[in-house]
Amino acid sequence: MAGNTFGQNFTITTFGESHGKAVGVILDGCPPLVEISVEEIQMELNRRRPGQSKVSTPRDEADAVEIYSGIFEGKTTGTPIMMMVFNKTQMSRDYDAVKDLFRPGHADFTYFSKYGIRDHRGGGRSSARETIGRVCAGAIAKKILAQSGIKIIAYVTQVGPHKAEKRDLSVIEDNIIRTCDLDASVKMEEYILEASEAGDSVGAIVEVVVEGVPVGVGEPVFDRLNALLAHAILSIPAVKGIEFGSGFEAALMRGSEHNDEVTKYGFLSNNAGGTLGGMASSQDIVFRFVVKPASSITVPKKGIDLYGNEKIVITEGRHDPCVAPRVVPVAEAMTAITVVDMIMADKASAKYFDKK
Amino acid sequence: MAGNTFGQNFTITTFGESHGKAVGVILDGCPPLVEISVEEIQMELNRRRPGQSKVSTPRDEADAVEIYSGIFEGKTTGTPIMMMVFNKTQMSRDYDAVKDLFRPGHADFTYFSKYGIRDHRGGGRSSARETIGRVCAGAIAKKILAQSGIKIIAYVTQVGPHKAEKRDLSVIEDNIIRTCDLDASVKMEEYILEASEAGDSVGAIVEVVVEGVPVGVGEPVFDRLNALLAHAILSIPAVKGIEFGSGFEAALMRGSEHNDEVTKYGFLSNNAGGTLGGMASSQDIVFRFVVKPASSITVPKKGIDLYGNEKIVITEGRHDPCVAPRVVPVAEAMTAITVVDMIMADKASAKYFDKK
Amino acid sequence: MAGNTFGQNFTITTFGESHGKAVGVILDGCPPLVEISVEEIQMELNRRRPGQSKVSTPRDEADAVEIYSGIFEGKTTGTPIMMMVFNKTQMSRDYDAVKDLFRPGHADFTYFSKYGIRDHRGGGRSSARETIGRVCAGAIAKKILAQSGIKIIAYVTQVGPHKAEKRDLSVIEDNIIRTCDLDASVKMEEYILEASEAGDSVGAIVEVVVEGVPVGVGEPVFDRLNALLAHAILSIPAVKGIEFGSGFEAALMRGSEHNDEVTKYGFLSNNAGGTLGGMASSQDIVFRFVVKPASSITVPKKGIDLYGNEKIVITEGRHDPCVAPRVVPVAEAMTAITVVDMIMADKASAKYFDKK
Amino acid sequence: MAGNTFGQNFTITTFGESHGKAVGVILDGCPPLVEISVEEIQMELNRRRPGQSKVSTPRDEADAVEIYSGIFEGKTTGTPIMMMVFNKTQMSRDYDAVKDLFRPGHADFTYFSKYGIRDHRGGGRSSARETIGRVCAGAIAKKILAQSGIKIIAYVTQVGPHKAEKRDLSVIEDNIIRTCDLDASVKMEEYILEASEAGDSVGAIVEVVVEGVPVGVGEPVFDRLNALLAHAILSIPAVKGIEFGSGFEAALMRGSEHNDEVTKYGFLSNNAGGTLGGMASSQDIVFRFVVKPASSITVPKKGIDLYGNEKIVITEGRHDPCVAPRVVPVAEAMTAITVVDMIMADKASAKYFDKK
Repeated sequence: MAGNTFGQNFTITTFGESHGKAVGVILDGCPPLVEISVEEIQMELNRRRPGQSKVSTPRDEADAVEIYSGIFEGKTTGTPIMMMVFNKTQMSRDYDAVKDLFRPGHADFTYFSKYGIRDHRGGGRSSARETIGRVCAGAIAKKILAQSGIKIIAYVTQVGPHKAEKRDLSVIEDNIIRTCDLDASVKMEEYILEASEAGDSVGAIVEVVVEGVPVGVGEPVFDRLNALLAHAILSIPAVKGIEFGSGFEAALMRGSEHNDEVTKYGFLSNNAGGTLGGMASSQDIVFRFVVKPASSITVPKKGIDLYGNEKIVITEGRHDPCVAPRVVPVAEAMTAITVVDMIMADKASAKYFDKK
Repeated sequence: MAGNTFGQNFTITTFGESHGKAVGVILDGCPPLVEISVEEIQMELNRRRPGQSKVSTPRDEADAVEIYSGIFEGKTTGTPIMMMVFNKTQMSRDYDAVKDLFRPGHADFTYFSKYGIRDHRGGGRSSARETIGRVCAGAIAKKILAQSGIKIIAYVTQVGPHKAEKRDLSVIEDNIIRTCDLDASVKMEEYILEASEAGDSVGAIVEVVVEGVPVGVGEPVFDRLNALLAHAILSIPAVKGIEFGSGFEAALMRGSEHNDEVTKYGFLSNNAGGTLGGMASSQDIVFRFVVKPASSITVPKKGIDLYGNEKIVITEGRHDPCVAPRVVPVAEAMTAITVVDMIMADKASAKYFDKK
Repeated sequence: MAGNTFGQNFTITTFGESHGKAVGVILDGCPPLVEISVEEIQMELNRRRPGQSKVSTPRDEADAVEIYSGIFEGKTTGTPIMMMVFNKTQMSRDYDAVKDLFRPGHADFTYFSKYGIRDHRGGGRSSARETIGRVCAGAIAKKILAQSGIKIIAYVTQVGPHKAEKRDLSVIEDNIIRTCDLDASVKMEEYILEASEAGDSVGAIVEVVVEGVPVGVGEPVFDRLNALLAHAILSIPAVKGIEFGSGFEAALMRGSEHNDEVTKYGFLSNNAGGTLGGMASSQDIVFRFVVKPASSITVPKKGIDLYGNEKIVITEGRHDPCVAPRVVPVAEAMTAITVVDMIMADKASAKYFDKK
Repeated sequence: MAGNTFGQNFTITTFGESHGKAVGVILDGCPPLVEISVEEIQMELNRRRPGQSKVSTPRDEADAVEIYSGIFEGKTTGTPIMMMVFNKTQMSRDYDAVKDLFRPGHADFTYFSKYGIRDHRGGGRSSARETIGRVCAGAIAKKILAQSGIKIIAYVTQVGPHKAEKRDLSVIEDNIIRTCDLDASVKMEEYILEASEAGDSVGAIVEVVVEGVPVGVGEPVFDRLNALLAHAILSIPAVKGIEFGSGFEAALMRGSEHNDEVTKYGFLSNNAGGTLGGMASSQDIVFRFVVKPASSITVPKKGIDLYGNEKIVITEGRHDPCVAPRVVPVAEAMTAITVVDMIMADKASAKYFDKK
């Protein structure tokens, strides 16, 4: 596969460039008879859309999804579901200034090197706009999981030096940072706006919790649930690291601390982050990932152009000073898709074979 | 695929349980005419073998590899290469005590839940002994890469609180920790032995550097080079997190700091860790991962047995107090396999099509 | 994968139902810098469109293709190419009569059994309209092959009892049967029209020739070129058999007849059909496949409805009395896609590794 | 994948060359708790072993299978099952005469062209000895199917001009031809022996019937059950064609004849061969395939050597004058593997999702 498909049984194939006609996805392998409305998908898409708050890009795009196949009278039919969003605001002129430039931190240089062709209108295929298709498919995955009592929630836990001190999951959609601590959200917002005014961007950390994954979901060895989640999350633009449970803190721990004890009432801790040997252990799946500060900034930086000339690059346009709040729904989508896919693998291969 | 295969063009499928007859691998898709000897493979295997030093398990197993197919007169033939190591020391009696127990931190519970069958003799399929096959295939991958001027090196940078302060790559194989700082190695060794005497284990951090990957290697969107490396590395037992370049530090950085500037002489920094948009940028690929303290300890811990009864569990046997030094060759192997696989994907699909 | 994707490196994923909004395809893994125009794709599509002649369905649909991604300024960019045709003529009322019926020879019964949901508007996903996406992707595959001197041509060799006696490939597009013998075409046409007037349909045989495939293309063992072509061709609706070279006649031959002798000037015969051990041998790849008579007929037949009641079924509507002429471009498309895919596999894995 | 793996959920990866150390297979994705003994696997292997009768090669190899992983106390554990047969009779000297020759009808030329390396000791990887691994895995697949009431049976229906007139499935293992008509078996045997004495070989046709596949098994569009079976069967050495149900006869039929009528008591005919739209329809799956006359003959034929010189080639050695009787168990194995794989796909993706 050439990199634009994810999943083995529940598979998504995304298409589209930031400044082409449209971006979208084919979701294949979706079980039939899942009730889903275009509004449910749109609702998830609205959580990632540009222009939703003062900490996101001022580009105001409706990003209205249309369904082209695979859903009949409000239910999935088991056939491929194609969903697409037309690219309405194509202000390609913003990009004329960078036509010949390789913008620092962007994929311009590597895509050009790989493919030998330059679509200079924004990020093209490497744009985060590609994640629209993931969110559409993720909305259906989340619906499937919800019906099985599985819940996915993501939230920002750190922006620059400001950490969430509380884990109040009820407030996540009440603040534009999508953090789990309203007090921290104020500081985070100030920090982002300050950077934004300076034409700069900031990094952040996002945490994801998955409740209710059945014990044993996850395949052995290479397709451990955590390995596939790492693959899924690291495929999101700007993500530079992931850790499960105690994560990097485990370097400082001893086995006697890290091993999660079990009693007849369940686990006494969750240092493992919800998997043992790569399979769900009945605990919450818990992981965190870091989002680098967005590369599109107006702070002048040294770069080169297609001809090797040194240039000072300023990326004008309307960009996100902190992408984390908009990455939250994308991370939920990729997590949901991965978990559904792994449940399907478990159903295919495991001990339930003759119980059809 | 059921989880025991990794790679798309250059694929490994491992087999075997820790206390079965043998463990091994089929490497498929290996280019023909690669000169490789059994000694070169054995050399890599010796770096991961038990009993190699006082910080590894005292089990002394030769782990002698045999090649069954795919190599003729010292050269790969393009057909599947099957390599296998017989399990010589099968001290199953060590495991009688834990026959009915789910050992805390181990995969006993999840494997039993998934498959409904218990092979109580050690970790079975979830044992780190499975990684022998990876190291065999990795030896061939490293040989291929070396011929193209691509070099992979891994080393321990932290054990408990003790960090390597230097990056002296020439000393890595000169100290039993496989760290890049001889001074730090002394403290790390002491720290490990102290835990070992207490029947306990310790965590660590390993860094990997890949030099010379051609620009553009890595597929777009889901099969980013970093996403696949994350998948590969998180599939190694005991690994709980990974970060590229500046990694989690990026949360504290601004775009104006994190964006790697470029001049006609090259990049001025490597916060990205060697990829842009998921493709190799010509910089070194740099990542770190954390290894949890090994689960097999003799410190008593609360657990349950197959029947739900609470038990105090002590995992006797001869285990590693710190697995990091032996994980180093496994990480190199998985990295090499991933990079070869991605180069092959690049060769298949990219602009070189009509240049055969 | 859930069945709607074909190919390993050069992959197509089709979507859409006969009476939904649209049908289309994502082609992923297409090499960059292939010059292709919408007109070139449309030309292939016109060869399969309904209403093109009196032996095809009288439905007259323009089937105009639109390109949504992956092509920039007339060249492929290496990113996914989404192509789509809107379903213009949705005369769903034709299908009200068969709303509850399982039409004999159709997939109504099996799709309903598999998915538990009925989209009664025509064949839904099982409709041959699905092949539109294949033809679009095939047009690009054929362009790629043409640039490497590889040519694919398909033609009808038999309709009912009427066989082509000549192999005049220059006349194929000059007769509505797409046969290689103008004399035979007259009898074939009469035979089809006679069946058509009786509300019936007829079967046929199509032959495909591929010239210029480089020696060695095709993977060993399971992914033999002939095995993948069989997979590709048998995936076309209504195809019930395939044979390579001498095909079923080989049952009557001896090894001394069947073995193709070789001199320094090349092969003296082509009983093998162009492959040896599943890899291209430098001879033409030659195969034939059979197309069953179309299932949609107005001759009354016994069937049952959703409730198990016996019904006499007449499939009204505007259907093809012989699908072979329209299958010809679909077969060329699937063949081209398979050959490009196999060339890419060969490029990825073979001895050219270090010659990038 | 590089061609040595088949299947998506229930996957086999074979390895080994005819004159290397061993040939074998890894079966991955096998459901756990399947009771299987080494004897059951050996029994299937004995049906394909050389030297079993006067119409097979006089090489007498025991082909004793050994199991290396994935089975514990007589049951599959859900982990990879590695099975291997050592190559005992390595009469490589037989091949010295053909060291530099490309034998007509063999894969010598194409393998050498693809890989640039020659293992002249017999067919190497292209030898039918590779199918040993398939038969081992097939034995487990057949056991799984038997437990679900699914039965696979294959038999020879034609050898040269001699056709089986009866379908007496009870006699198949009672005659060395493995045909379903004892009277015909006498003529077939004579015909084979006559060719054998002349140093020649003969072609044949084999029919396969699968009873009891649940309705709806088979994926839509590209992974139709018949398309995958065609892929599976055409991957067997010497197979040159396949047809389902009425097969090539369908060219002569009208829709009103070919459409299988249905009453409340079931189907009235089986022209479709057991699938509709590529999914099992509850009828028997019925297909036939043709086996070319074996290429290894002592009748002198024109060939060339590695240097392009013309040579007269006689393939000495001990070869099968008719491979069909030994292909029967291989065809059953590939069919069983495909059907189990498709049932698993159906379980993974279909409407049973929330019924785990």
